[in-house]
Amino acid sequence: MRLLYVFHLISILAFFLGIAMLAPLLVSIIYKDGSHWAFIKAILLTTFTGSMGYFFLKRHRNAELSHREGIAIVAIGWLAAGIFGALPYIFANVFDSFVNAFFESVSGFTTTGASVLNEIESLSHSILFWRSLTQWLGGMGIIVLSIAILPFLGVGGMQLYKAEAPTLMVDKLRPRISETAKSLWKVYVFISLCEIFLLSTGGMDFFDALCHTFTTMPTGGFSTKNASIAHYKSAYFDGIIIFFMLLAGINFSLHYRVLKGEVRSFFRDTELRFFLFIISVFIILVSFNIYNHYHNILKTIRYASFQVCSIITTTGYTTADFDTWPTLSKIILLTCMFLGACAGSTGGGIKCVRLLLLLKCGYKEIFKLIHPHAVTQIKLGKKAIPSDVISGVIGLFVLYISLFIVFSMSLAAMGMDFISSIAAVAATMGNIGPGLAMVGPVKNYDLVPYFGKWVLILCMLLGRLEIYTIIVLFTPEFWRK
Amino acid sequence: MRLLYVFHLISILAFFLGIAMLAPLLVSIIYKDGSHWAFIKAILLTTFTGSMGYFFLKRHRNAELSHREGIAIVAIGWLAAGIFGALPYIFANVFDSFVNAFFESVSGFTTTGASVLNEIESLSHSILFWRSLTQWLGGMGIIVLSIAILPFLGVGGMQLYKAEAPTLMVDKLRPRISETAKSLWKVYVFISLCEIFLLSTGGMDFFDALCHTFTTMPTGGFSTKNASIAHYKSAYFDGIIIFFMLLAGINFSLHYRVLKGEVRSFFRDTELRFFLFIISVFIILVSFNIYNHYHNILKTIRYASFQVCSIITTTGYTTADFDTWPTLSKIILLTCMFLGACAGSTGGGIKCVRLLLLLKCGYKEIFKLIHPHAVTQIKLGKKAIPSDVISGVIGLFVLYISLFIVFSMSLAAMGMDFISSIAAVAATMGNIGPGLAMVGPVKNYDLVPYFGKWVLILCMLLGRLEIYTIIVLFTPEFWRK
Repeated sequence: MRLLYVFHLISILAFFLGIAMLAPLLVSIIYKDGSHWAFIKAILLTTFTGSMGYFFLKRHRNAELSHREGIAIVAIGWLAAGIFGALPYIFANVFDSFVNAFFESVSGFTTTGASVLNEIESLSHSILFWRSLTQWLGGMGIIVLSIAILPFLGVGGMQLYKAEAPTLMVDKLRPRISETAKSLWKVYVFISLCEIFLLSTGGMDFFDALCHTFTTMPTGGFSTKNASIAHYKSAYFDGIIIFFMLLAGINFSLHYRVLKGEVRSFFRDTELRFFLFIISVFIILVSFNIYNHYHNILKTIRYASFQVCSIITTTGYTTADFDTWPTLSKIILLTCMFLGACAGSTGGGIKCVRLLLLLKCGYKEIFKLIHPHAVTQIKLGKKAIPSDVISGVIGLFVLYISLFIVFSMSLAAMGMDFISSIAAVAATMGNIGPGLAMVGPVKNYDLVPYFGKWVLILCMLLGRLEIYTIIVLFTPEFWRK
Repeated sequence: MRLLYVFHLISILAFFLGIAMLAPLLVSIIYKDGSHWAFIKAILLTTFTGSMGYFFLKRHRNAELSHREGIAIVAIGWLAAGIFGALPYIFANVFDSFVNAFFESVSGFTTTGASVLNEIESLSHSILFWRSLTQWLGGMGIIVLSIAILPFLGVGGMQLYKAEAPTLMVDKLRPRISETAKSLWKVYVFISLCEIFLLSTGGMDFFDALCHTFTTMPTGGFSTKNASIAHYKSAYFDGIIIFFMLLAGINFSLHYRVLKGEVRSFFRDTELRFFLFIISVFIILVSFNIYNHYHNILKTIRYASFQVCSIITTTGYTTADFDTWPTLSKIILLTCMFLGACAGSTGGGIKCVRLLLLLKCGYKEIFKLIHPHAVTQIKLGKKAIPSDVISGVIGLFVLYISLFIVFSMSLAAMGMDFISSIAAVAATMGNIGPGLAMVGPVKNYDLVPYFGKWVLILCMLLGRLEIYTIIVLFTPEFWRK
């Protein structure tokens, strides 16, 4: 592990993060909201640190990254983004403590959307914009952004992509990694532009349309309004946002293919079908369950669809206080927090393709009991899945559930109640945002105990970086030379 | 599938179940409790049905059982035991509905210990005795009992043992299955006698000592007292019962070895060490967590130890109302409900050896990330575990979790609250007994909605028969000729 070299590369990331802060600075100047000094300070500190690291840390002749170095860059990179991203909040005195600023920043870059803010609408435009931008940058992965730049600097690293990309099996879109990143980035920007256009033309203020797009596309869920999307009470906005949340929850390589004209392969995708099937079942169940709550069939379906899509894509927007819904709906939404969206999307959670493979493992055993001599193989579509992919999925599932239990226990030990503890951990590990009870949709994470916030920050990072990438950091072997 | 032949064999089981009812009849006569007619009717009906089935159903020249027939016998056999076992309750008018009698009977034979009785102490001695006896018979498996008898009738079936035995990898104690069953049966009886002796000499009424032994050994948990073991308020009884619950939760082939003098292999067993390690950790955590509840260090440790051991061994006795304990303790106990005891014991749940293998799967993936080129293999002790054993474990885990979610949702749909729904399903699938909230330790399952009781009966059977054995019954392929 060439740690100094790793920090050298992360310095580049920090530098560009500082550059990205020019955007909220511009917003601050346009709206004259008085937060410009906070951003100027943050930009100077971030770019200065980045430049220093770049010039003074050890460079290596062998630019090829090792497997472990790739992982270290992903994990430390995300952590660094969280720290530098918190600077504007600190300099603008948005929070009274570092942990809150860091929580909000990590929640942004991990596209979780869990907030510790009690009063969102009183914030300045530039801070609101930065909050949304952290999610947009986090969404596709600030690291994917970086691998479109790092190769330009002569750093090759397929291992890096392997470690970072939230996809299970990277569809080889194009041979070289920087080009892959650029292709996906174009799709991301294109769909974002469509959403901005549709929200604006529907009558949403341009600034809010921009911010909401920046938090829909990465399935982030930060809103510029206290009441989230419920603020608008508009079926049009609900519909548009449902549509774009779903798009954001689908494998981006499928979108890329559609834009290239291969529409057929889109609907043939096994994971996508499974994803849409689950969503439909859950919407129907929730609709039946909450009908007595609204006594209006259209409203019922609208709220049920929005909330199921919002939670399963791990966005976390709300149009209704689902914490007051009947128990069945709450259990369904909690289940959605674990499921998550498709692999290769910006969504979090365990991901549909993994669940599908796990269910196939279960079915295979039933089949073997009936046909003890049959030779069985797990397939996805027409492809047989290699056993190391399956054991990777199983390992992740086991670790996910185990960590969920351990972290729930630790929150409970700090005095949180049963439902709040498990929902807070599920909602942060799955990168959703709102949970249930004391961290429910009309509440926030401010009342979580001090150490609980640190636990949840860890949960957000673990969930976003597919558990493994963070967990290996805690093994001494990982750091050996 | 030779269904008539399967029923022919199950008739034998029914016949012997009728014979077993002579014991409570004797109790009824001794105590003159007035329930003798209920037992006489039940005995006549059961033995008559059994004899009719034995003589009139199709016998086959090929006595060798197929894989599927073995499974059918296990599943239908257990169901039949539940039905015939409910007859004494029905004839003695213990319950006002069939579902309650069936629930109590299945809860007995699956060694769950979930009760729908509001007033236990008002029952006659013979009914109380029958209630305990169903657990004792269920404990080692009325099917294990039967495979000690069936081979005597010339029916061979290693497949049967494979399907029934609650062990992951049956330690080949002796080559022939009937002998294995008999060996384990002797151990079971021997330990039972020890417990009866120790409880009686400690001052417990002989009848209660007998009944409590009959429900400790199978990790059942039915008590003759409304307040369960809390009734005695005795540290001696608590200690003795903790000890025997632990014995019952340990692989019986280890006990067999100890009785044969191989004491060393006992403490070398990987699963046992893991089991004791988890128990110790949980007792320490719970003790710290509930100290403020009791303000007495000895009492705290006593209650914590009893409850952790009772739940993790899936017995379900109570000495304290853990539903009033702080959240952390409740989450720990809920986790215990999933974990369960050792394979090859009378305990239920997922079982420690499976959890250990799953955690090793998770660790293997972390290891692979650090050493991408290393060849890894999952081992237990010094033995490498074949991949089909591992995929069996994974399949079970996935199905267990999936069914847990589905059944929790179905209880919630019937109007039960969040914690009650998940705890009721966890406590019945794991064959524990008491859950939390409305099915908590000082309450019972009587208030569960009508259809909910049927769901929970299914949960008890699924859990007891290791999921697969019941699930295959729902596949059309299973029933094909």
